[in-house]
Amino acid sequence: MLSLEDLKALAHPADTKIVLFVLDGLGGLTRKGESQTELEAARTPNLDRLAGEGNLGLADPVAPGITPGSGPGHLGLFGYDPLQYRIGRGVLEAVGIDLEMTERDLAARGNFCSVDAHGLSTDRRAGRIPTEVCAQLTLLLEKIGIPGLEVIVRPVREHRFVVLFRGDGLEEGLSETDPQETGKPPLPVRAEVFAAKKAAGVANQFVSEARRVLSSEHPANMVLLRGFSKYPSLPKLTEIYGLRAAVIAVYPMYRGLAKLVGMQAVKTGDTVAEEITALESVYGRFDFFFVHVKKTDSAGEDGNFEKKVAVIEEADAQIPRLMSLKPDVLVVTGDHSTPAPFKAHSWHPVPVLLWSKWCRPDAAAKFSERECRFGGIGHIRAAELMPLIMAHAERLAKFGA
Amino acid sequence: MLSLEDLKALAHPADTKIVLFVLDGLGGLTRKGESQTELEAARTPNLDRLAGEGNLGLADPVAPGITPGSGPGHLGLFGYDPLQYRIGRGVLEAVGIDLEMTERDLAARGNFCSVDAHGLSTDRRAGRIPTEVCAQLTLLLEKIGIPGLEVIVRPVREHRFVVLFRGDGLEEGLSETDPQETGKPPLPVRAEVFAAKKAAGVANQFVSEARRVLSSEHPANMVLLRGFSKYPSLPKLTEIYGLRAAVIAVYPMYRGLAKLVGMQAVKTGDTVAEEITALESVYGRFDFFFVHVKKTDSAGEDGNFEKKVAVIEEADAQIPRLMSLKPDVLVVTGDHSTPAPFKAHSWHPVPVLLWSKWCRPDAAAKFSERECRFGGIGHIRAAELMPLIMAHAERLAKFGA
Repeated sequence: MLSLEDLKALAHPADTKIVLFVLDGLGGLTRKGESQTELEAARTPNLDRLAGEGNLGLADPVAPGITPGSGPGHLGLFGYDPLQYRIGRGVLEAVGIDLEMTERDLAARGNFCSVDAHGLSTDRRAGRIPTEVCAQLTLLLEKIGIPGLEVIVRPVREHRFVVLFRGDGLEEGLSETDPQETGKPPLPVRAEVFAAKKAAGVANQFVSEARRVLSSEHPANMVLLRGFSKYPSLPKLTEIYGLRAAVIAVYPMYRGLAKLVGMQAVKTGDTVAEEITALESVYGRFDFFFVHVKKTDSAGEDGNFEKKVAVIEEADAQIPRLMSLKPDVLVVTGDHSTPAPFKAHSWHPVPVLLWSKWCRPDAAAKFSERECRFGGIGHIRAAELMPLIMAHAERLAKFGA
Repeated sequence: MLSLEDLKALAHPADTKIVLFVLDGLGGLTRKGESQTELEAARTPNLDRLAGEGNLGLADPVAPGITPGSGPGHLGLFGYDPLQYRIGRGVLEAVGIDLEMTERDLAARGNFCSVDAHGLSTDRRAGRIPTEVCAQLTLLLEKIGIPGLEVIVRPVREHRFVVLFRGDGLEEGLSETDPQETGKPPLPVRAEVFAAKKAAGVANQFVSEARRVLSSEHPANMVLLRGFSKYPSLPKLTEIYGLRAAVIAVYPMYRGLAKLVGMQAVKTGDTVAEEITALESVYGRFDFFFVHVKKTDSAGEDGNFEKKVAVIEEADAQIPRLMSLKPDVLVVTGDHSTPAPFKAHSWHPVPVLLWSKWCRPDAAAKFSERECRFGGIGHIRAAELMPLIMAHAERLAKFGA
């Protein structure tokens, strides 16, 4: 695979528009005794027509057999090898609640938990306290003063929160405090690399102060921290390819991931139709549009096959509006598979549809996992898709003379 | 992928013959409203019969989405990862005019240009002077004496020439002098790496002498240099596989590329039939034959769909003569795609046909991009083809015990 530097050297500007339409968790499975996946069962006349004119393929988000989280799943689609570019859980949580980070920040994911009089963990999730209680408690935590730095604490959901330590010299490479079982005390934070010594001291000071300020609370009278991570300094998609890029996504996590690679967030309503309306409203201002549909994944996670079929059909119904914008390249794919029969993210390769006037047509009858096996794109890594998109958008120069 | 050293360790001699028949720019596209590529539209009964007996596949010359120049395209076919082995433009120009290089040479591509009395560029191509004028002027340049080294200057075409600086300690890593726009003076050559300091001095001295010796010429009164590059020290194909290898190509560029990897050039006439006659004449003296047909690419570049179809049919008509030599392995493919509708090199994967008695037959009906999607070779990188060829020629030992 070409390095991002190689690709940057080849990239040149062009007056072309690209839409990356991601149906989260698109890849599916057949139900026992049946013969069609969610995508195959869905009636998708518009996608099927594009499959006839364009190219199909299968993409492994990370590598064969590897089930990706949302972070690696999207990094792959944005052209970054998820094995080379990693995003820590603390950062992902911060990004997931639209919390702006700076390069001086060290982020961690926190859990409120319960400890007994001896400081031994009795419930690692503090009985999953309501989100409102979590919000009240984070206000207490934010009052913790650590000299020379700023502490920012925000609720996520139930017992989960994010903490940012903002200051100089806070490096990642810290062990987590979660003892992973009840009856044990939270672990002290250890610096796993020398550069993280200062950060370890700060984190331990925060945990010890947290115990003090929460001492009269119940059941959430202590915290566990993990996923300590710095804001990643990724080369920006926008700079690599010289693109103005926008993200249209209902959930903050996906907007946050896109912002990490240089995209600008566009306001949108909740439905697929409203997302396409948002796309229409900014179409003149950007070159690259990442449009994210969440509900395919949610339906898959819920094991709701029919619901996932319905969301795919809802997305298909918007294709004519999208195509009437006359994009030069349209890609429809997922960041990973979430087969309804599996009820979770999975490792199954993801169907890919790439449409442009420069496709050597596959003449496929339908956009389906089955047809994708025979497509002209072949079976690739998700990160290989972006150069293919840029080629079809006539934005890559010849390699070598 | 195995390294060339790994492959060398596996290679063993055999009494088998291999023909690599390259139709330059073979991969194509359908025209708007039509359903067949150039290869699909061509009547190729002989290739179709071989497709039935052998294996088909698709090859990406460099990586998905990457459009290769002729250098990387052929290096891939010869089994070299084009990302690892790179050939500079100066060397490619030298190779393209059959100019022999040594390992002490630093090559550069030159343009004659025009400058005004202040030394500012007024025409970066000196009005595209005729090749004969270029030839006269290179004689003047060749008289430039630089102590301790030899300067070799040869015309290419119109305003373009090649210069070789032959001497010790001339390393690559130099910036180019082309200011890229008129109204600016040619740039001085800068050493981008420490080892290139001597070479930078030499290049600057040459440019300043060139200005002097050309001062009374018009319009070509100055030179621009770029693509400074050393002769690449590639491990030789012939040594890796223990082969005697020959190149049969009408254009010097392709002979030159083949000579870089150890092949010997064989004299040939201009038509495909004459190239096969050349093949017949040396068939006993070599094990590996690279036969290059240029006109598929030229027709593609010209956007001449029918002409490209005709050249493919011309090549097909020579297959019976080629097969009557009884090669053990025959491969028919391209170094990249040059779809007539695209009128340029492109990134589209290249159809591959590999025929040997050891093929597990695909039983394909036709040699076409479509059938190649379903072939037993699958969708590979071009550089992976060479081990496959050697295997079918029974020239690779078992890997591991």
